[in-house]
Amino acid sequence: MKYTAQVLISALAMALPGMSPAGDIPGPSHGIAYPEGWQEWSTIAVSHRTDNNTLRVILGNAAAVKAARSGQTDPWPDGAILGKVVWKDVQLENWEEATAPGEFVHAEFMFRDSDKHSETHGWGWARWVGLEQKPFDGGMQVCIACHTPVKDRNWVFTDPAPFPQLR
Amino acid sequence: MKYTAQVLISALAMALPGMSPAGDIPGPSHGIAYPEGWQEWSTIAVSHRTDNNTLRVILGNAAAVKAARSGQTDPWPDGAILGKVVWKDVQLENWEEATAPGEFVHAEFMFRDSDKHSETHGWGWARWVGLEQKPFDGGMQVCIACHTPVKDRNWVFTDPAPFPQLR
Repeated sequence: MKYTAQVLISALAMALPGMSPAGDIPGPSHGIAYPEGWQEWSTIAVSHRTDNNTLRVILGNAAAVKAARSGQTDPWPDGAILGKVVWKDVQLENWEEATAPGEFVHAEFMFRDSDKHSETHGWGWARWVGLEQKPFDGGMQVCIACHTPVKDRNWVFTDPAPFPQLR
Repeated sequence: MKYTAQVLISALAMALPGMSPAGDIPGPSHGIAYPEGWQEWSTIAVSHRTDNNTLRVILGNAAAVKAARSGQTDPWPDGAILGKVVWKDVQLENWEEATAPGEFVHAEFMFRDSDKHSETHGWGWARWVGLEQKPFDGGMQVCIACHTPVKDRNWVFTDPAPFPQLR
């Protein structure tokens, strides 16, 4: 029985679920590697912007969620990654006074590393656009410009939403 | 050296992180046990209701998220739990056209079990109120009444938001 290289690669990918066939993972944005698995990160907050009609969920990696839940966000710890997932807003058909996610716009991230990213205020700024997750390469200054109103808040708009803490 | 029962219980709770000291876990709502750990569940959607000025994130347990991501939601599979986390909305200080979470209101859940909950449309309906997570006991019909507009949608308002699927 003969195997082609493609079959062997597919078999290997199935055998090791953590792996992904080459090419599936988007390339870097501003030199920052794609934060695989962000879709399953926990929630830190949500927001609705009426100036550009978008709904957002703010997610965090484990370090960011731990910091958010315990109020240790001034500053956010090195290693924390904040993700903002953005959809166009649409009116809910069955509840007119409700707005829900429509088209996916992009996912953008702030990577906290006060040394590595000291020249960009302690954060690495990255964005992947559309469902195809095309890396944004317009320069971190595009991101930083919009965040200038919160330069005294560690450059972060988000206040973690209150969550019940039972332990 | 003597140990009181309380010290032994506390030591046991520390030794087994999955456990919680008695009393920390809220009691049942409508006979349904509290879904521990929902705070860290993944996101299925978000919404903004302007009739009662609340922002929401819709979370799911592993079964619900798997169904949402793969479009297997008609019907939702038995074992799926949908959680709706609700905050009052507030205007963001540093971006006036944005609304963000204020006071925590409640977390409410739909537990899918077509047999066990056959008399309530295949769902168990439960809610825990406030940061103290007081069990709601007003009757499932209170929940069902509001969901009547979506009785032909498996009683679910939420359409899962589109997420990039890279694999």
